[in-house]
Order: sequence, then structure tokens, then C-alpha cells
Amino acid sequence: MIKLAVGIDIGGTNTAIGLVDRSGKVFYQTSIPSQTRENVEDYVFDLYGEIEKAKKTIDAEFELIGIGIGAPNANYYTGTIEEAPNLRWKGIIHFTKLFEKYYDVPIFITNDANAAAIGEMVYGGAKGMKNFVVITLGTGLGSGIVVNGKLLYGHDGFAGELGHIIVDANGRKCNCGRNGCLETYVSATGVVRTVFETLAYSNEPSELRGIPFTEMTSKRVAEATKENDPIALETIKKTARMLGEAIADITAITSPEAVFLFGGLTKSGRVLFDQVQYYKEKNMLSIFSNKTKLLSSQLGDDSAILGSSGLVWSEIGG
Amino acid sequence: MIKLAVGIDIGGTNTAIGLVDRSGKVFYQTSIPSQTRENVEDYVFDLYGEIEKAKKTIDAEFELIGIGIGAPNANYYTGTIEEAPNLRWKGIIHFTKLFEKYYDVPIFITNDANAAAIGEMVYGGAKGMKNFVVITLGTGLGSGIVVNGKLLYGHDGFAGELGHIIVDANGRKCNCGRNGCLETYVSATGVVRTVFETLAYSNEPSELRGIPFTEMTSKRVAEATKENDPIALETIKKTARMLGEAIADITAITSPEAVFLFGGLTKSGRVLFDQVQYYKEKNMLSIFSNKTKLLSSQLGDDSAILGSSGLVWSEIGG
Repeated sequence: MIKLAVGIDIGGTNTAIGLVDRSGKVFYQTSIPSQTRENVEDYVFDLYGEIEKAKKTIDAEFELIGIGIGAPNANYYTGTIEEAPNLRWKGIIHFTKLFEKYYDVPIFITNDANAAAIGEMVYGGAKGMKNFVVITLGTGLGSGIVVNGKLLYGHDGFAGELGHIIVDANGRKCNCGRNGCLETYVSATGVVRTVFETLAYSNEPSELRGIPFTEMTSKRVAEATKENDPIALETIKKTARMLGEAIADITAITSPEAVFLFGGLTKSGRVLFDQVQYYKEKNMLSIFSNKTKLLSSQLGDDSAILGSSGLVWSEIGG
Repeated sequence: MIKLAVGIDIGGTNTAIGLVDRSGKVFYQTSIPSQTRENVEDYVFDLYGEIEKAKKTIDAEFELIGIGIGAPNANYYTGTIEEAPNLRWKGIIHFTKLFEKYYDVPIFITNDANAAAIGEMVYGGAKGMKNFVVITLGTGLGSGIVVNGKLLYGHDGFAGELGHIIVDANGRKCNCGRNGCLETYVSATGVVRTVFETLAYSNEPSELRGIPFTEMTSKRVAEATKENDPIALETIKKTARMLGEAIADITAITSPEAVFLFGGLTKSGRVLFDQVQYYKEKNMLSIFSNKTKLLSSQLGDDSAILGSSGLVWSEIGG
């Protein structure tokens, strides 16, 4: 009999649902919009419906061994989603409890960046590693830090907010209400902000000068680097420098075997990756020189499902 | 029969040696100069002599259950002291192995800031805490980070170098060869540097204007704050601001229950402590607001012996 874990990844727009075995083979996956239901209870009922539908499609004998959920502002300790700015349900939601109505299997929740780290450990490039960091580069910057083979949750379950270390106290406004957080520079939105700062500072020609702020994306910047657009190249260089410095700092604090880069922004090609590697070593304390590997996530397109389902395997083995 | 652990704290100038029971009661302590012996083997022989002397003075039946050593650049995993800049023995020294010649009990080594964290956990204010940080403020800035009840050593044993996160890439020269490390600002030497920067910038009168760089100490600055010397107050404020910002950052990363301040600089009175508390909260990401306690170390004058002997109890219980 095959053992399968359910993985649910709750994003601001869509929720991915899948069934995955211990090796990372995805047996089924689907996706529903996250925010059509006013009551979170109705949303959980929809998820239950999707899981039941999924179970019927699987053409083999299987046992459902647990449910893993990745969600913004999720707390592993308490099973809650707390004041998630990108979800419509406000306050503190006892999310795993809502699921217990439907399933009598272990249910785990963690935030999306932690889920990415767990997915990397269970199925990906961090198999067998005991100390590593995953940095997720999307709209914002998230991180999952693994210490002694376990996610670093800290006292209250919210550790790993590398995106909110302050890199410039007089720097850019952050959605968190403060100034100069790392994610205001190193993220897809950070790249867009840096493009406009660079366009303002430089007087070099650039195809990016024709694009308004509302239409600029990190993907367009990445494409422009392929044509050696000087503004695009300078933007990627600045982004990479700040990320490289942050990786040197997190290495001084946690000494990981590897740092994995994950998410949309990492798909902008070698130019970002190579520059991050350069600035990481340029800023590294000498005892850590050339010790910490910089790697790309190996989770691929199913990463959301893999991260959340991986949580089940990392908790109950199998 | 009383169980006792040996604690050895190796500093650049002196080495403290003591025998301590599980409760933190110091049964004997002494100190020898650290750097009189050209060969490290002779130095270890001297330490052996001191321990044997100590054993004879104890007027009770006891069992020696282990030896704990705190030393600069010590590596817990390998039992080595590696390229310690303040010690005369260069290269990689297999320090615990040298001790095994004399004693058939478990021998552990860790760096001095980690030892301070362990001492706090075993005997001090962190008893029962599973996630906390100790920041040692002396000539430099060290840190010991405890995660899930265990020291965070990282992949190679050297994690916890909070003093070497870079707070200003164009900032002060650091002994590590880089620029702008936290400890160039937040440490006894950092305070002295800040005094002179403040004297240069300001034109306010100050008793500190009469003291040359070579004679300035953080203690004199602390004393001047008691007379409301404006330069001294501004210096402490700047130092506290940078430490408060760093504590907000380390909280975002590791979410500790408490941050303990330890070492000479913390003896400069409430003014530093209160300002650190202020800037910590001013810079804190909202989900961590007023969650992480700022505390003073409770180890007192025997801290060096307590930290190193505590390592034994934390490893083998008792």
C-alpha cells in the first residue's frame, strides 16, 4: 500500500492541493482560488472537497498519513494563521483545528518559506543536510533556517524573518511599517524599485526607460540583462550585492552548509546567481570563506505542493 | 558524594580554573597567566598541575565528572582551538586531546561566548529557556545562540559570530580585515572609537576632551555619563542604538525568548541598558514587539568558571 501525504499551499491568489509520496512523486494536484469565500470555514470545506475528489482519482491502494499546510504568517506551534496581510480572514485563525473536523490524521502547518526549506530537506538538494538556509525570492523575501536537522521556529514560532532585517535604517519604506528591510531591496518588488532608482541616477540609455512603474516586473529586468542593458545589469548587480551581504551575515550567525535560493526571482538566470556568489564571498568572514555553498532549489515546478507535503514526512517519518 | 565539574576559561591574558557543582557553587578557583609557555603542551601541563592542586584543597568526598573549557576560536565539534588571534599558539590545536593524556573523563570545549550562554542556561537567568541569545560585550562582541535548548553551532562549529555581521559596508576597519562589523561599534573598543567620532563632530564641552585615545576606556565614558557629560551620553546612545538594531535583527532571525547582555561594558549602568531596550523595540518587527526580554546576565563575578564548567553539566546532565 502506498503512503501519501496531502500538501496544501495557501497563497494570496491561489491554493495548491496535492497528494505526494515519500519520494516526492506527485500523484495528483489541483488548485483553487484562495479568496472567494468570506468565511474561512467555507474555504476549509472547499479544501476538504478537493482532497476527497483527489482521493477518488488515485488508481492504487493508498493510505493518507497526514496533511501539511504552508501558509503566510502560519505558526507551527499553535496551528494558527495570524494576521496574514494577504489573506481576507483577519485575526488569529486556528487553521489546523478547522481541518480536524474532517480528518483524523496528523495535521501540520508552517509558513511558506519554512515549507520550502522542509521540501528541500525531504525531497530536494538539502537531503541529508543538518544546517542550511532557504531564501525564497518572490514578491517578498522569506527564509527557512534549519539547525541540527530541525526548522528554527524560535520561542514563538515566527523565527526566520530574514526579509525583515534592516539593512538601511534610512532606507526604503517597507510594508511592515519600518524602513530599509532587506526585502525592500532583494525581492521581485525590490528589483523594480531598484530599476527606477538606477534610471534616476544614471543617464545611460535603456529600453527600461519606456516602461512605467506599474508595468515593470523583475522578469522584464532579467530579460533586459540578456541584451546587456546597462540599467538592468546595474540593477541585478545591486540586488546581488545586498543579497550576498545578507548571506554573509546569516552565515556568521548560523553557519549553514548551504544557502538555497528559491522562487521566481531566481529564474532570472545565471547573472544574478553568479553575482550573489561573488558578493557572498567578498563579504564573508574569513573563517567561513568558501565553506557555505550557494545552490538553487531543486524542487522544480511542484515546489509548493512538495514543501507543504514534506512537512508531514519530516514530522512522522515514513 | 559531591559531583564536581572543572571549568577552564582561557583568555588572552589570564586563564581561570575552578571546580563547580551542579548548582553553580564554586568550590575552588584560581588563575594563571595564559601566555608564559611557548609550547601549548607545557601550558596544558600547568593546567593539569592546577587542577590537581585544586583537588587536594577540597575538604569533602567528591567525584570529578568532566572538564569544560571556554577559549577563543574553540570548536566544539572538533575539540580544537583554531587560529586564535589573541593566543600565541598558532594553527589548529587539538586542545581536548592534549587533556586526555591526564584525565579519563569527558572533556568539552567551546568558544567563550558560547560558554557564557551555557553558563546562563545551566546556572543563570536562562534556566528553563529553550531559545535565547547571550551577547558578550568586552573588547569585542561575541554571541551564543541557543535554539531548542541547544547551542547553535552550525555546520562547522563556528556559528554565533554576531559581532561580525556588517552594519555599515563603508564603516570602521575591523580586526577581521573587513569594514563595518557590529563589534567595531558595539564593544568596549567600539565605545572608545565612538567617543572620538563624537568629539570630532560635536563642539560641546566634555571632560573627555582631555583624554588621549590610548587612555580612553569605556569605563571612563560610563563614569562621565553619571555627570551628564553630553559627549559620553551621545556615545552611549549611539552604541545602544546599534545594539538595539542588532537585537531586533537577531530576533527576526531566531525569535529568542530573551537576550542577555554579559560582560564589562554592561557594567556601565542603567543608561546603556535602558537605551538598548528603547532602540530594540523601536526597531522591532511588529510580530515580535514586546515579546523578547532584554536581561542582564545573572552569572556574576564567577562567570568565566561557570560558563566553562556549565558545559560539562549541559552535556552529561547530573
